[in-house]
Amino acid sequence: DGPDTPHRLVGLVPLVALLAADPDLPVEVLMDADPPTVTLGIDREEAAWKAVRHGESGLAVLDDAGSFLGIVPAQHLLEVLLQAHDDDFARLGGYLASTQAARLAAEERVGRRLWHRLPWLALGLAGAAASAWLVGLFDTRLEEDVRLAFFIPGVVYLADAVGTQTEALVVRGLSVGAPVRRSLRLEAITGPALGLLLAGVTLPAVWLALGDPALAVAVSVALLAACSVATVVAAGLPIAMARRGVDPAFGSGPLATVVQDLLSLVIYFAVATAVLG
Amino acid sequence: DGPDTPHRLVGLVPLVALLAADPDLPVEVLMDADPPTVTLGIDREEAAWKAVRHGESGLAVLDDAGSFLGIVPAQHLLEVLLQAHDDDFARLGGYLASTQAARLAAEERVGRRLWHRLPWLALGLAGAAASAWLVGLFDTRLEEDVRLAFFIPGVVYLADAVGTQTEALVVRGLSVGAPVRRSLRLEAITGPALGLLLAGVTLPAVWLALGDPALAVAVSVALLAACSVATVVAAGLPIAMARRGVDPAFGSGPLATVVQDLLSLVIYFAVATAVLG
Repeated sequence: DGPDTPHRLVGLVPLVALLAADPDLPVEVLMDADPPTVTLGIDREEAAWKAVRHGESGLAVLDDAGSFLGIVPAQHLLEVLLQAHDDDFARLGGYLASTQAARLAAEERVGRRLWHRLPWLALGLAGAAASAWLVGLFDTRLEEDVRLAFFIPGVVYLADAVGTQTEALVVRGLSVGAPVRRSLRLEAITGPALGLLLAGVTLPAVWLALGDPALAVAVSVALLAACSVATVVAAGLPIAMARRGVDPAFGSGPLATVVQDLLSLVIYFAVATAVLG
Repeated sequence: DGPDTPHRLVGLVPLVALLAADPDLPVEVLMDADPPTVTLGIDREEAAWKAVRHGESGLAVLDDAGSFLGIVPAQHLLEVLLQAHDDDFARLGGYLASTQAARLAAEERVGRRLWHRLPWLALGLAGAAASAWLVGLFDTRLEEDVRLAFFIPGVVYLADAVGTQTEALVVRGLSVGAPVRRSLRLEAITGPALGLLLAGVTLPAVWLALGDPALAVAVSVALLAACSVATVVAAGLPIAMARRGVDPAFGSGPLATVVQDLLSLVIYFAVATAVLG
């Protein structure tokens, strides 16, 4: 074979097995004939999972034609996994990904802590201003029945929590290479199902507590609608960003929460206006 | 040495280095004389970080007296890291830790998805009911000035987001064995600092928008107080739970959010009552 002849991978022999083996045994007996392999361009965490599932500590890399390119040692996989873990957390927390190293230093000074949170701070303030403006649009409705204000935090919180859970599923799914499209479809059903459950408890509870069936219907229907939208936003936003080549960081965590909170408010007051007339 | 004589670790030699080396070289030259070591009871992720920082793929385990007990191979470290990653996500998402395997299956049926979210569902509904009752306590105040309702979502959201970031820091800190007490102290300063920044922007903005300086002061002071409390709750709750032997799962994610949201509402209306008279 010349140096440019492609090599086909037939198996891997761990060094430990090789050293412990009877010197007369042929290598075919020692080798793992179905070793974990990856091609170029695979996600780092997906690759690490593959090695673990095969019970191996290293990974063979092949090109698209199946020729052997090299081995990723366990030590690199470890490093890559710890990094991936940090990145995911930085995303959910809304930190700039590039600041993770500094962020993780527990000794980081307060000034640096503030600086690292600035991008989120600006977004959060914009969201809060938008929410104040939105609720303000419905001021006459609130004056007519101030009890509408009672359910603002609850509806916003529940839809948001539903979305956060979906987000955790999707971010994990993207990391390990799960079929995203199917997950998205199932979550799109899970949202309304959760909403129905929550509305089913809320309807009699509000009716009993305030003695107003129309208000109870308004709150319950708003909850159902907000939860249905929440899973789609939480799953769709990071996936859409990733597809456009934008860092999914901008589509999960704080941004998703701001978008969802504003949608929940619009839904709540729109439903209340429709139901209460 | 008898089988019970304790062995002292003097160094580690990677198999690759051993195989590649000149057979005449003494082992002292090949070995890493300062290998990564851990004692029993160390956190799994902290252990993995240690190996990576040393540039090794395995870890030596010593007992408290420094005697060599064995080696943790890279393959086990990989598995443990992937598991730790999942656990942290399950915590933040509010899933029961025991359901992660099923949760991660992207093909999981909708019924199972609902079932796995039930513990959170009950908590979320209780929180939503409590928040409705809380806001209801201030119904006459809301009737006097319905504009107070405009800022409910914003104050709750901003304090919550500040808490979520602290939570990510603390959960990561607990995982990698960072000094938690110092981190807690720094976060306790970061909260009011963030609150001051947010209040500094909010005060003139609300004043200008609604032309009511008293309302602007009420919203800003409430924001400052809520953000200050948020970092302490987000850092303190999981740490306190871990110390009492309760799974920190119950002190982060949904529970922390519910507690913080209720606190934010109490703070907001208490401050409004104090400032607006």
